Amino acid sequence: MTTGVRRRMGVEERRQQLIGVALDLFSARSPDEVSIDEIATAAGISRPLVYHYFPGKQSLYEAALRRAAEELATRFEEPREGPLGARLLRVMGRYFDFVDDHGPGFSALMRGGPAVGSSTANAMIDEVRQAAYEQILSHLGIDEPPVRLSLVVRSWVSLAESTALLWLDGRRIPRAELELQLVHDLAALCAVSAAYDDEMAAVVAGMLEHEPLNGPLGRLVTRLTAVAPTVMARVPLPRSGSGS
Amino acid sequence: MTTGVRRRMGVEERRQQLIGVALDLFSARSPDEVSIDEIATAAGISRPLVYHYFPGKQSLYEAALRRAAEELATRFEEPREGPLGARLLRVMGRYFDFVDDHGPGFSALMRGGPAVGSSTANAMIDEVRQAAYEQILSHLGIDEPPVRLSLVVRSWVSLAESTALLWLDGRRIPRAELELQLVHDLAALCAVSAAYDDEMAAVVAGMLEHEPLNGPLGRLVTRLTAVAPTVMARVPLPRSGSGS
Repeated sequence: MTTGVRRRMGVEERRQQLIGVALDLFSARSPDEVSIDEIATAAGISRPLVYHYFPGKQSLYEAALRRAAEELATRFEEPREGPLGARLLRVMGRYFDFVDDHGPGFSALMRGGPAVGSSTANAMIDEVRQAAYEQILSHLGIDEPPVRLSLVVRSWVSLAESTALLWLDGRRIPRAELELQLVHDLAALCAVSAAYDDEMAAVVAGMLEHEPLNGPLGRLVTRLTAVAPTVMARVPLPRSGSGS
Repeated sequence: MTTGVRRRMGVEERRQQLIGVALDLFSARSPDEVSIDEIATAAGISRPLVYHYFPGKQSLYEAALRRAAEELATRFEEPREGPLGARLLRVMGRYFDFVDDHGPGFSALMRGGPAVGSSTANAMIDEVRQAAYEQILSHLGIDEPPVRLSLVVRSWVSLAESTALLWLDGRRIPRAELELQLVHDLAALCAVSAAYDDEMAAVVAGMLEHEPLNGPLGRLVTRLTAVAPTVMARVPLPRSGSGS
């Protein structure tokens, strides 16, 4: 049915180019503010030709989101080699690279809104969350997580999301600090759960097993141990009386 | 323009009744699955009369959501008296009461979807998050939070959301355990931030200042101290060699 138009690009190549152009625009501004006209101009083609490849902005948005989701999922991949803390810190570095590159689009997507809150978009967000969850479990070397670990890792994934969103809103804290903080947060949330559950205590012991003292997790323990006396000195632990 | 119909209920009373009936239905099942017909039947009025008070399901849903949001916001209110940990634990108890009462509706809302992902709904979710954030700061006795505390409290609010959502999905962990865990998580996230920041260390010291050892926060410290040797015994802290 194509009417003999010949272009340099094949159909699939043109589709991929449009997705790339759209992703750049959707990343730089809220997707609601990006028009098909703009995408056409940026791609150097006519508006009707965009519609030839994608029936509407929503389908192009979803294709761009699909590419972003696949890209984000790969950021969580990391060889299972060396200490856990350093591995997680590298993953967090690549995660913040992604968030940095796609800031406005990432914010708009995670906050929902007319163009971005579709069920397709939500399903893709869930896929990325699931991929992140599975990667973390794999780094912990755990195939069948106990229910408490499952909850801690999944809720940490959401903590990583909200931390990144809050960082984007003003960037008032250096991102390197937050990358490290999120690694520490995962350990801390596991430790809290471990305080009441033997299975989780074993998980935490496993996390720390090959951890050098100068790695991200070792340094947290060291720092907390160092700071604890100062903090605890201000805490009125039970004494015989409560006189002034 | 009303055609002289007289009913026992006044307009505002009828609106409030419809909102209550709708909220019950939207709480018990995903709002997408609830029809205006069902709401009319449950309220004992005709479908056209529902439309007389609310132009469509979305406006009724948003009114129900408004009521739920106001109710949830009040759950975070708690007198500024007594130890912080016990106060936060009571707040978490009321928060889980709410989540328990509105389970399917809460899940649908937080996961987004056709009927629930509107910008009005998102704005209300943000208002509740803001109310929760302000209540927690108020309990900490802090008016102008340093940027790191702001981030920790806001990201903890999202952690509380995801923890509740994960709990709803199967209820495989006793809710009382998660209520306590979330109080501990807040302290742990603050402690992580405090490990590298003096301002946060002062906040943590303030949190613990009036905390009895048998309160929720005191017990965490006690338990962590008790469990730490077991965990640490499995951690190969640096020794002279690494021989087998």
